[in-house]
Amino acid sequence: MIHQTDTIVACATPTGGAIAVVRMSGSDAIAIAERMFRPRGRRSLADAEGYTAHYGEVIDSTGEVIDDVVLTLFRAPRSYTGEDSIEISCHGSAYLVGRIVRQAIDCGARAATAGEFTTRAFLAGKIDLAQAEGVADMIASTDRATHRLALNQMRGGFSTELRGMRDELLRLSALLELELDFAEEEVEFADRTTLRQIMDTIDSHLVRLIDSFAIGNALKEGIATAIVGAPNAGKSTLLNRLLNEERAMVSEIAGTTRDSIEESIVIGGRRFRVIDTAGIRSTDDRLEQMGIDRTFTSLRRAAVVLLVCDCSTWSDHEDPRDAAIAVRSTIEDLQLNDDQILITILNKCDCVSAQFVAELRDELAGEVLAISARTGEGIDEVVASLSRIAATMTAEAGDTVVTSARHYEALSNARWALGRAFEGMEGGLPSDLLCEEIRQVIYHLGTITGEITTDEILGQIFSKFCIGK
Amino acid sequence: MIHQTDTIVACATPTGGAIAVVRMSGSDAIAIAERMFRPRGRRSLADAEGYTAHYGEVIDSTGEVIDDVVLTLFRAPRSYTGEDSIEISCHGSAYLVGRIVRQAIDCGARAATAGEFTTRAFLAGKIDLAQAEGVADMIASTDRATHRLALNQMRGGFSTELRGMRDELLRLSALLELELDFAEEEVEFADRTTLRQIMDTIDSHLVRLIDSFAIGNALKEGIATAIVGAPNAGKSTLLNRLLNEERAMVSEIAGTTRDSIEESIVIGGRRFRVIDTAGIRSTDDRLEQMGIDRTFTSLRRAAVVLLVCDCSTWSDHEDPRDAAIAVRSTIEDLQLNDDQILITILNKCDCVSAQFVAELRDELAGEVLAISARTGEGIDEVVASLSRIAATMTAEAGDTVVTSARHYEALSNARWALGRAFEGMEGGLPSDLLCEEIRQVIYHLGTITGEITTDEILGQIFSKFCIGK
Repeated sequence: MIHQTDTIVACATPTGGAIAVVRMSGSDAIAIAERMFRPRGRRSLADAEGYTAHYGEVIDSTGEVIDDVVLTLFRAPRSYTGEDSIEISCHGSAYLVGRIVRQAIDCGARAATAGEFTTRAFLAGKIDLAQAEGVADMIASTDRATHRLALNQMRGGFSTELRGMRDELLRLSALLELELDFAEEEVEFADRTTLRQIMDTIDSHLVRLIDSFAIGNALKEGIATAIVGAPNAGKSTLLNRLLNEERAMVSEIAGTTRDSIEESIVIGGRRFRVIDTAGIRSTDDRLEQMGIDRTFTSLRRAAVVLLVCDCSTWSDHEDPRDAAIAVRSTIEDLQLNDDQILITILNKCDCVSAQFVAELRDELAGEVLAISARTGEGIDEVVASLSRIAATMTAEAGDTVVTSARHYEALSNARWALGRAFEGMEGGLPSDLLCEEIRQVIYHLGTITGEITTDEILGQIFSKFCIGK
Repeated sequence: MIHQTDTIVACATPTGGAIAVVRMSGSDAIAIAERMFRPRGRRSLADAEGYTAHYGEVIDSTGEVIDDVVLTLFRAPRSYTGEDSIEISCHGSAYLVGRIVRQAIDCGARAATAGEFTTRAFLAGKIDLAQAEGVADMIASTDRATHRLALNQMRGGFSTELRGMRDELLRLSALLELELDFAEEEVEFADRTTLRQIMDTIDSHLVRLIDSFAIGNALKEGIATAIVGAPNAGKSTLLNRLLNEERAMVSEIAGTTRDSIEESIVIGGRRFRVIDTAGIRSTDDRLEQMGIDRTFTSLRRAAVVLLVCDCSTWSDHEDPRDAAIAVRSTIEDLQLNDDQILITILNKCDCVSAQFVAELRDELAGEVLAISARTGEGIDEVVASLSRIAATMTAEAGDTVVTSARHYEALSNARWALGRAFEGMEGGLPSDLLCEEIRQVIYHLGTITGEITTDEILGQIFSKFCIGK
């Protein structure tokens, strides 16, 4: 991809608000701005320093005023794109913005494509590819966790870690190449134990990053949480309590929720995608059965499962141990895997004695919470529990979390290449071939930050950006 | 309404784009910005001049970075509000914007109410009330005509005209007051003829402005245009031609359009609200009759009526004069009033000979166009005709067009007061009472620009603004 320096223009904000911002970047940006901007003060844009704002009017080719604006000027290389740039803050009408953009085009600019401003920042070396992707994540961030990950990536935290690994790999290949220079003398300058240690360190680093993708993905997409249980156990009431509003349709008729309902809740700075499912029971109703099938689909995809049990189906003169057997059998039917986190929720706990509930809790393993979704009792504990889960997930992942499938793939490829280098070394592969394997690892890491890149990769990444970014 | 100087904050753009702009204004704006902004360069905000931009990071109370931003600083009185102001250009995520606004609030700002920035600009005397309303119209403008009107009003064009009238009225009352000082001597310093001339000039000025409201309203709301005619005359096909796309449902079954369809088309820089109506005929179908009733409602509200006649109902061996009689009878049935503009459209003109069409056109009065909506023949002429209508409407109105019902009311009140003053003068009313009537005229004009105003008027105007403006 050739670094073009022609001047591009686009609106960088949605229209319809009080103001909108039209952005222009390229070698002619200031000259084009001069043709369409009449400053109120005496200062001409040509003489203006970077990082200065100017009040004035945007005019069309006939000299007619389009709008009163504030124009901010940035001079290369001190701008987002690294080029001369202009930002025009105008009134937020789509019609107006259209006219200003058209005027810029008439004066010599070109309409920017999606992500073209950030592409230029990358090509000018202002940011690397991982940082550019961080910008996109930043714009899309919806809660504290995704925001923090995106910010870290955008500000180069991830890139710094990758650079550290790259430096280690370069040291490795330098050692091997030194050996190569003296190949005829058949000496091993590079101590194989040292090499192995360096490779181990890099490998464990790669593993940590690769493993963080599961969490990174969960944080980015929201932690999938399924509310399951028998019909009329109070699943929708629980969801409504969590949402603090009547979102799901609630009734006393068992089987009210036909389809799975998904809602987004931010708890402890992390977004949970909470799925309220159809109650599980044997049924002849075809529609209801379809709902139950979807419940199991949701269940398989969930990271967290809230099993809602209905205490009103028991009475105080029953043995809590029998109730526990029933609950355990329900849990078995869910066929959860080891990665899934289960919270057993004893709902309608006001329908039986506190002693019954306490004994039942003791009988059951894992996290068991007694609540009344109807009165709100115990809901705080459910929220606290979900908050703890989110905190643990983030803590486990460390500062740098891989959130992009592209990065995950590159890291996996790097690790695979590293594994081949390791095998080669064990098998007595000559230093020059070993070097080649190490270069493969460096190559794959390089695709993440964009040191090694192709037009195709760039196209894929930046086409996901919005126009004006 | 007291001019408050506490610092307000709000997002001035919609979120979801590449960037968003958070705006802050008030006596503490710069101090608050300093608490939450860490500049990248050495310059502190406290020392910075107005109209300078600063790259840096917004931090929360714990020092954690929220976003990399560009902050633009404006110093009183050289800002939109006339107060110290800050604009923070951040990434366009709603979550991020929420955190920045909350941080500003934590640092001492207050969330702005709708239109509060512009209210402050008004209270600081930066703009008058008519200009403030122009700002709102500017944001809402959707075509060249409304944009030009809003821009003229925002930049004080209307206010200047009002000031001119006000000056004349003040001259009038000064003449009368001079007389008052010498009241005991029973002289008439002010020549009644001169007074009458001044009043006549003002009256005709008021009449022009009041009359412009009909056009201003039409331009602001779009020029209401009804397409009417017999079933299957090709009304929907014509609308589709005008829209250049298949928007209305078209079929060969007479009575396809049951309900009135309204579409917006910009022709010659003006927006037309074109209403495709149900065909008019006697029918027993209750639904169809309801459609026909709505046709007549649309018809009464239309400024322009396109009557579509179906040439295929005639043949060449008929007398064009008989066809003309039928068309004239249809026109009569429409019961149009004098203000409504009629264009008679002879559709399917390819079904009869050119000579028949030519003779029929000659027989009919007013604007008659022969088209074929199906082939597109003659559509350009319809567009040109609508364009001319729009141009005439705008030209008739002059530079200043009243677009606000509030202004229309104030102008009507002013004219009524002027009428009383006129009557009083004719009836020999003493100068002091005449003066009082003149002051009433000045009062009503003053409510438009806000020289005379109440909290209620301000509340009504600014509550229609969006937050952040």
